[in-house]
Formats: sequence, structure tokens, C-alpha cells
Amino acid sequence: MCGFNRSPEAIDAALASGAIDQAAASVEEAVDGADVCFVCTSVATLPEFVGRALSVGGDCVVSDVGSTKARLREELRASGLAEGTLNRFVGGHPLAGAEASGVDHARKELFEGAVWYLTPGESTSGVLYDRLYRVVSDLGARPIALDAATHDRLVATVSHLPQVLANALVVQAAQALVEESQSLPATGPSFRDATRVAGANPPMWRDIFLANRDAIEHELSDFIARLEGARDVLRAGNADAIEGWIEDSRADRERLLDRELAGGTVSELRVTVPNRPGVLAQVSLALGEAGVNIVDMALYPAPDMESGAITIWVAGEQASERAVGLIAELGYPAAVVDRDKGE
Amino acid sequence: MCGFNRSPEAIDAALASGAIDQAAASVEEAVDGADVCFVCTSVATLPEFVGRALSVGGDCVVSDVGSTKARLREELRASGLAEGTLNRFVGGHPLAGAEASGVDHARKELFEGAVWYLTPGESTSGVLYDRLYRVVSDLGARPIALDAATHDRLVATVSHLPQVLANALVVQAAQALVEESQSLPATGPSFRDATRVAGANPPMWRDIFLANRDAIEHELSDFIARLEGARDVLRAGNADAIEGWIEDSRADRERLLDRELAGGTVSELRVTVPNRPGVLAQVSLALGEAGVNIVDMALYPAPDMESGAITIWVAGEQASERAVGLIAELGYPAAVVDRDKGE
Repeated sequence: MCGFNRSPEAIDAALASGAIDQAAASVEEAVDGADVCFVCTSVATLPEFVGRALSVGGDCVVSDVGSTKARLREELRASGLAEGTLNRFVGGHPLAGAEASGVDHARKELFEGAVWYLTPGESTSGVLYDRLYRVVSDLGARPIALDAATHDRLVATVSHLPQVLANALVVQAAQALVEESQSLPATGPSFRDATRVAGANPPMWRDIFLANRDAIEHELSDFIARLEGARDVLRAGNADAIEGWIEDSRADRERLLDRELAGGTVSELRVTVPNRPGVLAQVSLALGEAGVNIVDMALYPAPDMESGAITIWVAGEQASERAVGLIAELGYPAAVVDRDKGE
Repeated sequence: MCGFNRSPEAIDAALASGAIDQAAASVEEAVDGADVCFVCTSVATLPEFVGRALSVGGDCVVSDVGSTKARLREELRASGLAEGTLNRFVGGHPLAGAEASGVDHARKELFEGAVWYLTPGESTSGVLYDRLYRVVSDLGARPIALDAATHDRLVATVSHLPQVLANALVVQAAQALVEESQSLPATGPSFRDATRVAGANPPMWRDIFLANRDAIEHELSDFIARLEGARDVLRAGNADAIEGWIEDSRADRERLLDRELAGGTVSELRVTVPNRPGVLAQVSLALGEAGVNIVDMALYPAPDMESGAITIWVAGEQASERAVGLIAELGYPAAVVDRDKGE
């Protein structure tokens, strides 16, 4: 495994940890004689570095790990690469690593079980695609072939669109609070959830938005039409239509969440707790020792910062009942949220 | 403290727990001779029960705890109540209780430090307003007077709009996944965050949407215009404009979050952990014992469900450094997220 990085410190750390066993002085040197090359730069610099990796020649299959796929291929083609050379490129996007970056956080299990989208072109070499597929499988990932446009639409929907919404929502709320001269803590749990990712990493998201702007534009237009529809339903004041609209969303959310968690039913618990260090530990320890695995969690401190609520999602009906009992034993009121009843 | 509820079981539980010390057989009996009355029914039935409470006569000030305010006053007026009777009504909305409902979850600290919006009308009796203000203060809350329309705009922005967006986003994603025949877990952390509240309690949200539909319509129109603006920026492909747009949102998010947490700077940590029962407890216990109070937390299981990432928000720079050290001692890679760098 040979690696190249512009930072000598990163190279040294990668050698020391065993992430690579040979360091190259340039992209070209790293690719020379290789069977497979992964280019892991930022989305904006991928065309340059993928181009350089391909220009080395030989029969190396070159891939990347960027989160958008169609525009990269277009840019490579526009850069004047010969079709035969371009056929050695297969785009890739592993769904893993939503955590700290850098070689210090490298771990060999990172891709275990992860979906790894591969986006071959129509004239991609079958031999090279097969070689890349095997390397990705050997890393423990599940390679799935998808055409670049479909891939870009999916990530636009489930990742880029939520990012745009979070950004827009934060700006709108800030403006409303300023206009009403409210200097008070006035945001609710749904606002906190909806805006957690707002404003994240402007340079990185700028590049992702640019790289996938056609698909995001399309999803935004769809979403705008959907909001106009919701506004029409509200304006008409038809109670059944409003409730039906919420029910549809509820069914879709359950479908998505159940699927994500491999078929287990997810239950939601609400726990009222004093808001002090150690309580979260106490609750999660009680569940952990009983073998209840928490799949998601959200904390909502009360305005006094002395009490609050924890929402915990656990998989399976028995798990939720066990969890309620265990938490009650600690002296905190807990309940399974029945979405058919009130909150 | 005298209470009435349509459910005899709720009355018995309230008496047993000391939440009330006297039970009434009807709304009218409960209000008779009272100084202050809180009507705590669902938003849709508030006009009926507030009207009945006011019709008892005397000089009782009647309030409610519903999450929208302007339409209730309009409906009371439209119901033909005399102006003098209506002047005994002062709308209220405590920002507390985002947790399990029912008397089993009653606790006397619920309102400690909570903002409690009061929306007096122009001709509300000063004596009665003052009485309500004192009762709310005595519960430990911070009463704040706001006109009903301003109140409704604020909750439309920070609560009702995020709810609409979560619902719409889930439906759009489900449709995209179906259209692309993707039966795979393909949603990311931002999607999970953005859709946590999707589909919650259809009957309750139907009533809230109906009760506040003018303000929500207005916020939706603003938001649609904002998304159209974002789409224009994307379409133009101007990198600086895109980055500036994200930077604005980032500044606004920090401003809102800092304010919500009473001025403390909030740091974000990423921790890579094995995804098994007990790990969350171990991490939060280590922080709790060192006096680090976690203000928010999100779990992101990796697709293999065997490893994952925890994002933890803590207040104060020293707290974040201490937290990273403590977590590293447990053997898990942790880092403070620097939003100026990559993720």
C-alpha cells in the first residue's frame, strides 16, 4: 500500500500507524505500477488529481471517494482525456466516515458493512471494474453499482437538501427574532434538531453544492412545489387533508427508519431528568447493562438548565418496555411515546 | 387547588399525587369562586372550554396553555362573549413540557425558570393580569408579555415551520428512494436530524396547524422565497456567494445556540466508538464524573451497526479539551470539530 499526501506530517503518521507501508513523493510516483488508486482529495480538486493519476498510464483503475459523481466525469471528459484513458476511471462513494477526519482517526473497520457506491460509465473496462469491486469488498464494504445521475439525485435528497434547509431555517429564525426584538431563548426541540448541521464547514459544503448543483436544484424545485402544496392545504383549512398529509409523512418516516435499522421496529421514549452531569451516564448505563442498545438520542434541557427531557430511540417493543422499567427504577419518569396520543 | 378532568382516573391520580387537593364535577364547579383558572385542553377544544370557564362569571382570570394565541381570541370574540367577559381572558403559553404528558409525569419544578408567554389584549383588566402574572411567577416561571400576533409568528418560525419541513422532507426522500428502486439504507445524519419530528402526533399537529395557519402560511411563503434565492445562487454557480450564504447561516446558528445556552461557547466533539450497549454510558460517565455537562448529543451508527460516531456538544473551551482527554483515555478517538477545517 503506497500513499501520497501533500503534508509530510500526514505521510509520517500514516507510515507510523501502518495505514500505508510505502510513501511516494508525488501522485505520479504513487500510481506508477499500481493496480488500483483511490484519490481522496476535496471535491473541488478531484478533477485535477484524478486526471494526474490517469495520466500515468498503465492499467491502473482510478477511483475517488467524493460525495457527488456526475460532474466529475464531465469535467474529466472536458479536460481532454482520451476515451480509452477515461475508461480506467470508476467513480466511488463509500457511505462511511461521518466523524473526525485525518489519519489519526483511521481504523481498519471503517468500511465494514458500509455501502460503497460505484458509478462505472457505459464503456468502463469490465476487467478494471471487477478489480475495483474486489478491492472494495476486501475492505469489508458492500459495493453497489449505480449510474452517476441516480447517485447524485439520492445524495441530493437525503444529504444536500437537508443541509440547504437547515441553513435557510436558521437564517429565517434569526431574522424573525431580531425583527421582534426577542433576546430570549425561544427555540424548540424541533428547531434544534432541524438546524444541527446548519453552517457546517462552509468551504467543504460550497464545493459539494457546486459539484452537485444540477441535482440539488432539481430537488429544491420539487421541495418548493411540495411546500406550496402544504401551504394550499393549510390555506383551505381542511382538517382531514392536513391530518392526512401528516399521516403520510409519518408512514414514510417509519418506513425509512425501519429499513435503515434492518427491519426492527423503533420505539421512542421520553424521560424527564434533572439536568446535571452524570444523569445521562446513569440512564445509558442502566440500559447498556440490560443489553438495550440505544439507536438514537436527543437531549432537551429545560430553560432553567436544571431539568430537562431525554428522548431515546430503541429498537424492538420488548426493548422499550424493559427500558421504561429500568429508568423508572432510577426514579425518573419515563414513557413510550404513543404517537396516536398527545405528547 | 381545584381541578376538573373528563377522565375520573386522571382526577384520582391528581388527587393521589397532590397535584390538586380538590376535585370538581364540572368546569363550572371548578371555576366557581376561583381567582385564576388554567384551561389545559387541546388547541381545538380551547374555545369551548375557555368560553365555559368565562361564562361562570365572578372575577376569575382565565388563561390557557395552548401553543397558538391569536385565533383563540378571535374565536372567543366571534362566539358572542361580551367584551367585559372577554377582558377576563389572558392567553398564555409556557415553554416547558417537551416530554411525556399526563398527571403521572407532573412535577413541581416543571416551570422553574421557563419562559411563560402571556398575551393580554388591549382592554385586559390590569388587576386580573397582575394576579395571573404573580401566580405564574410563583410557579417559578418568567412571565413575558407579548402581543398574540408576535407570539404566533415566533412559534410559527421556531416550531411549526420546522415541523412542516420535516414532514415534507420525509415524503420527498421516500419518493426518491422508491423511484430509484433503492431498498438500501441510504440516509445520512443530516437527514436523521432533520426528520426526527416528522409525522409526530397527527391529530395534535393538525389542530396546531389549523389554529396558527395564518402565521405558518406567512413563514412558509418567506421560506419558499428563501429557497428560491438559494436555488438562484446555486444556479449561478458563484462559489463566493454560496460560501457567503453558508457563512451567514453559521453565524446565525452560533448566535442562536450561544444565546439559548446563556452565553457559553458551545464546542462540538466527534468520537468514534464501537456500537454496542454500554459505550454511551462509559463515555457520558467519564464526562459526568469530571463535571462536564453535555448540552446535546447525536448518535450516528455506521451501516454495519457495529461501529459508529457520537457527536457531543459541550459548553466552554476548557470543557471540550477536558472531554477529549477523558474520552481518549477510554481508547476512543475523539476530536473537537473545527468548522474552519474539513470534517
